[in-house]
Order: sequence, then structure tokens, then C-alpha cells
Amino acid sequence: MSTLRESFTDQAVVCKHCKSFFRVAGSVNVSEKCPECGGELDAAGAFNLMFQTRIGVPKGDSDSNSGVKKSEGYLRPETAQGIFLNFQRLLRFNRGKLPFGIIQIGKAYRNEISPRKSLIRLREFTMGEAEVFVDPREKNNHPRFEDVKDRMLRLVLGEGEGGGEEEEKSVGEAVRSGIIVNEYLGYHIAKVGEFLERIGIPRDKLRFRQHLREEMAHYARDCWDAEFLSERYGWMEIVGVADRGDYDLSAHASFSNADMSVHAQADAQGEAEPAKLIPHVIEPSYGIDRIFYALLESSLYEEQVGKEKRKVLRLKSEMAPIKAAVFPLLNRDELKKKAREVFQKLRDASIFVEYDDSGSIGRRYRRQDEIGTPYCITIDYETLEDDTVTIRERDTMKQVRVAIAEVKDVLVKG
Amino acid sequence: MSTLRESFTDQAVVCKHCKSFFRVAGSVNVSEKCPECGGELDAAGAFNLMFQTRIGVPKGDSDSNSGVKKSEGYLRPETAQGIFLNFQRLLRFNRGKLPFGIIQIGKAYRNEISPRKSLIRLREFTMGEAEVFVDPREKNNHPRFEDVKDRMLRLVLGEGEGGGEEEEKSVGEAVRSGIIVNEYLGYHIAKVGEFLERIGIPRDKLRFRQHLREEMAHYARDCWDAEFLSERYGWMEIVGVADRGDYDLSAHASFSNADMSVHAQADAQGEAEPAKLIPHVIEPSYGIDRIFYALLESSLYEEQVGKEKRKVLRLKSEMAPIKAAVFPLLNRDELKKKAREVFQKLRDASIFVEYDDSGSIGRRYRRQDEIGTPYCITIDYETLEDDTVTIRERDTMKQVRVAIAEVKDVLVKG
Repeated sequence: MSTLRESFTDQAVVCKHCKSFFRVAGSVNVSEKCPECGGELDAAGAFNLMFQTRIGVPKGDSDSNSGVKKSEGYLRPETAQGIFLNFQRLLRFNRGKLPFGIIQIGKAYRNEISPRKSLIRLREFTMGEAEVFVDPREKNNHPRFEDVKDRMLRLVLGEGEGGGEEEEKSVGEAVRSGIIVNEYLGYHIAKVGEFLERIGIPRDKLRFRQHLREEMAHYARDCWDAEFLSERYGWMEIVGVADRGDYDLSAHASFSNADMSVHAQADAQGEAEPAKLIPHVIEPSYGIDRIFYALLESSLYEEQVGKEKRKVLRLKSEMAPIKAAVFPLLNRDELKKKAREVFQKLRDASIFVEYDDSGSIGRRYRRQDEIGTPYCITIDYETLEDDTVTIRERDTMKQVRVAIAEVKDVLVKG
Repeated sequence: MSTLRESFTDQAVVCKHCKSFFRVAGSVNVSEKCPECGGELDAAGAFNLMFQTRIGVPKGDSDSNSGVKKSEGYLRPETAQGIFLNFQRLLRFNRGKLPFGIIQIGKAYRNEISPRKSLIRLREFTMGEAEVFVDPREKNNHPRFEDVKDRMLRLVLGEGEGGGEEEEKSVGEAVRSGIIVNEYLGYHIAKVGEFLERIGIPRDKLRFRQHLREEMAHYARDCWDAEFLSERYGWMEIVGVADRGDYDLSAHASFSNADMSVHAQADAQGEAEPAKLIPHVIEPSYGIDRIFYALLESSLYEEQVGKEKRKVLRLKSEMAPIKAAVFPLLNRDELKKKAREVFQKLRDASIFVEYDDSGSIGRRYRRQDEIGTPYCITIDYETLEDDTVTIRERDTMKQVRVAIAEVKDVLVKG
């Protein structure tokens, strides 16, 4: 805990005039002016980012005021440590063998001095993390590296030859030339790239930047950030992928005296090896809120349609919260009844649909465009005769006539 | 916040001998002995169950020690209030019309004095809540009440005629006779019963108990607990369904001066009505951890099979975390290769499967029985010849021979 307390500390400054506090970063420091009122800034010392609280009512001496002594606790500033604490149980779950990975998604909490910028710097945020435990002798031997080695990545190198420069390289090449430190790290960097592109973040707004030695966390051996180019905030980290070495397990072992080692298996060469070893950890850490922001920012666009503008959230169909909206063309009972039937049928097939009969058909299209609904289904008088409907696609605005029985297939297959 | 602070307060006692603290409940009170060491108990006063912390660095005067004044905050002791705070935004989202419901799942935190009993009393727990906002004049007119009215419920009544007695009644009858106060409450009680039975909690271990007036929360007009009969802990609440009236919205409105009212629509009779009204709230509140416990406890059983016992977690197929396990009959390369293929094929079809080639086939069956996997698929030498496999069902232990191409259908259809 003392280590976490040191890691999660920021330097703060306070404005002598308006008394606002700011985190020291970039152009915010004592030699500059207050970003809010232009007043003089003063150093305000170190600021612990962990939220402190008191937990339970322990045995022992009581507090003289309340008769109750409570013990100190903190909201977790990252989600990873719970996995390390449970390492021996998780290892047993995997029957004592390496490698294995544990994934977890949850909230983490940091008492940010300046929580600003939309979803970018939140005091309560969502992290999705994997801790992949691997025999350190096997880090250059990922069993599925072959599957990802040809993926091209835009890389910004850290120190050394080519430091700070941007290069387009395949993962295989980057590992072979030593830019990315081993296959396990390379594999997970490739998987992060694959995921971000698959959910719909454009390739030309993504890059991987290697940490400089001075910014690297105390535990990291090599660390890369997946960065998104925001129109509003510039390049920003949305996922981090780190080789944490044996830092965490060794630290827990030395503070708690718990055994965090694994019985080593013979390596590929069958050579003699130590009886026990501490696994190394590769950690992809997804900032869910930031990814969400990146997806929204890069999906929203405006375009001229005839005399008016429309806003469209160009989400991939699999990412859209609502798959289709069902409209009666006119506000007539017989059309509304039929539209409700189609709506219910799709719902029963576990498709997220919305029903809307309020306002002109054009206005109803705009509502769905704005929230990224890929399809709108309109019921008209022809529907009552031949059980066909119009399906309109969001981006092209093209309409096709389809039998009701086939609507589900169109929605699912896209 | 002051109201929450009063609501979430427990009385505590402390043992004079071992200094343990306990929550006052049932047989734990000052006139009894310490449940741990038998020592004398002493009153320890009221204990605030909310975790307190400090948030951010506000403007204003600084603390004399640190130069930093921080403001008081609490971890939420229930999830509902966020929905009430956002009521006007949510109402706009529903275009100003009643009724509508908002669902939310998340963590809540209570600094329990005695967090004991497995998953039953946790300091950090998961709640799934719905807040259903309804025009108070429409509470006896739920649009889908017809769908649930015949559902039979085991009811334990509160005060009045028949108080404390258990009755088997349909929801329709219970509402008609005034036992359940209105259709909206009845509808959601029925839906809770439907859900609990559908996930696999046996009907004979479920009942609905009406709160007595003295135990009812300050906000509730009528409140029912869905209770599960635990072998270990007796009857215990796993879901609560309350008619909260207009308590929450009115309280927020009066403390914050925010407008929490809705423009009233003409009622069915078209009678004159007030221009604005405060909606009433029906709240089903699911204790996810307790439901999870109830499901595990009521699913686990032991039975004699030949000379040995087996433990089986009799989960419904749709609730089982792993749908099927794939085994090579023997630890031979050609069988393992084929088994891996079948495994990968099912995975690619988005079915959660596990592969296991370690230990005897009997032992591998036991492992899957214990975690509730409904199907085990075995690959043998016949498979290599004719592409058929053996599928073994968990509860009956019956085996059938099926073509690989049909395995997916068997798993999905059950």
C-alpha cells in the first residue's frame, strides 16, 4: 500500500487569487499564471490521488471520542492488484500451469485535482484489464504469434536509435528488430490494435507510442500506449500495454511473505532449470471511458442533405445500441397496429429495436441518425396488403423493399 | 444526504472482554452475551453505515495543516438516488411522458459492523434496480397486468386481517382483495417471481413477505420482500419490491428546489386535472450477490454413483458459465488434435466451451459436474472414422452419439 501511495501522487499548485487548485502538468506550474483567472500560482505540495476512507470496527482500543476505532482504507486506484493478491488461487484454477491470463473489468477511483475534458479525466472510471502470466523464459515464444505477426502498426519509438520518430512496421518486424521487447508484448499490442479498429476507430487516428524511460512506471520493463488522435484534445492514451516483469508478484511476496512462485516446467530444450520461478506479467489495460469517447468523437459527422443538415453517428452495426427503429408511415391506427406487431416480432428475436410514431418521418429518421441506429423500418399501406416494409440504411439513406419475414436477416447480416 | 445518513445507521454493541463489535439484531443486544467469547456486551451507540471520504480540492479557505481543504463525500449506500437526481433528463429522454422505467446495475457500499454469512452481508455489493415512474392516478391500470394476473404467489401478509399468515394467491386476486396495494406493484412482484423461477430457484424455496409497518422504510407505502429459504440461514431477503410513492422526487425537490414534476396528461375519463404532478415510483431492487448465493445453494447436490459420490451443480443450461467441455478419450496426439478442432469450431460459434485432456475421463466428468457444465463431448477413435462424437448430459449421465455437424444444435436447443 505504501508503494501505491507513492505512485498515485500528483504535484499541485494553487492560485493565490481565485484559490483554484490545479495538477502540475505541461504549462501549468508555479512559473506560469492561473489558467482560470490569470492570478499568480503557488506550490501546494504533493496530493494523494487515492480516496481514503475507514472500514469496519476492528478489535482493540477504542477511540476516545466515539468509543469506536475504525481502520484506514482506500478506494482502489487501479484494478490490477486484486488479481495479484489472488494469484495462487488463480494459478490453482489453471492447474498450476503457465501461461494463463485473467481478465477483469471494473471501476477505479482517483481523486484528480483537475477532473476535466469530458470523459478523459474522471474521478471514477472504468478499466478493463488483463494480467497475462508467463514463464519469463517463454516471453519470446507466444503460441499464436504467427496469427498476428503481419499486422501493420504505426509506432512512435522511445529512446535510442530512431527515438521519437514514427514508423510503420509489422508486429513481427518490430519484435525481430527489438523495438518491441518480446513476442508476448507484441502479441497483445497487435490485439489492442485489432480490437480498436474492429469496434470502428479509424486506423489513421491510431498509433502506438513507446514510453520514455523517465515516464515509465517504476514497475514497467517496456510500455506502449495506444493513442487516439482527438480533434479536440490531440493525441491521447486510450489503452496501455506494459511488460511489468515480475515486479508485482515479487513486491506482494516480499511485503506479505506469501509464496507467489510457480513450479517451473522443463523448458523446450529440456535444460535444467530452477525448481521455482516468479512469472512475468504482460498487462493490456483498456481505459473504457476514453475508448468510448474516441468512438463517439470519430463516429459523429454532419452532412448537408438537400436544404438541411443532418447529424449522423456512424457506428458499426454491432456497436449501435439500437439496431433498428420501426415507424408507421402515418399516425393511423391500422398502421400503428401493424408497426407494433413488427416491433414486437423483432424484440422477441432478441434484437434491440425502438418504436416511434411521433413527428414527421423525416424527423424520426434524424433522431435515429443521431444515435447511430443503422436501420429504420417503415410500415405503410402497401405493408397491409403484401407484408413488405421499407428498410432505410443510415449512411447511404438508400431504401429497399423487403418481406417482413426477411427483415431479421437483413438486420443481422447487415 | 442528511436523510440518507439517518436511514443508513445501525445500533452497535461492543464486547467488554474481546472488544469485538456487533450489529444489534435478533439475539445480539446489551442484555445478551458476546457471540464470540461469551463476554458481557456494552452499548456502543449508533454507527453510520456510509463510507465517508473527501473529494477533490475546492476553492475557498485552506486547511491550516496541509494548505488543502477537501470536501466531504460518501460512497453510495444504494444505487437508486442517481436515477432520481437525473429525473428531468430521463423524463426528456422519454419525451415528457409517463410511465417509464429506468434500470441500473452497480455497486453499493455499506460499512457493515458484522459482514458475515458468505455472500449475504457484504460491505461492497451489487444491486440491480429499476425505478418505474407512474402517474399516481394510473397505479391501478398497468397496461400488461393481464399477462401476469394468473401467476400464483406464496404470500406472507403484514398487519391487519390475516397478518403473519401464509397464503397461496394469484397476483390478480391479491390486488383485487387489496393485499397488494395496486396493479403496478403487483405486476413487478409477479415479474420478480417469474425471473427467480426462470433462472432456476425452486418454487418451494420462494415466498413474498409483506413488510410490517414498523420495519417499512420511511419512504415506502407498501413493500414486499422476495425471500429464499436457505438451508444454512433460513428465510432471507433476495429482492425487495417497494411502492415508494412520491417520497424521493419530493424530497429531492424540496432540498434542491429543482422541479421534479411532470405535465399531467388528461386521464382516461378526460376529467380536469392539475397542470403538474409528481410521479410515484415502484422499485424492484435485486440483491445480485444474494440471488447468486441462492442459485448456488439450491443447485448443488451430492449423489451416489456406483461406489463413489459425485457433486453436481444443477444449473439450467442458460445459466451455466460453461456450456460444454470437449475431451479426447485418451491422451493420444490424433485424438487431441481432433478434439481441439471440435473445441475451436464451437468457440468460433460463440459457445463457451472448455478443453480438458488431463486425468481419466471419469475425473474430467466430475470436474464439469461440479461447475455445472451441462454437456461433455468426447472424441474417440470412431470420431476419426465417421465424424461422430459422444455427448453426455450432466444430470441423467446419459450418452448419445451425434454427428459433429449437429453438436451445436444439441447444445443450443438443450
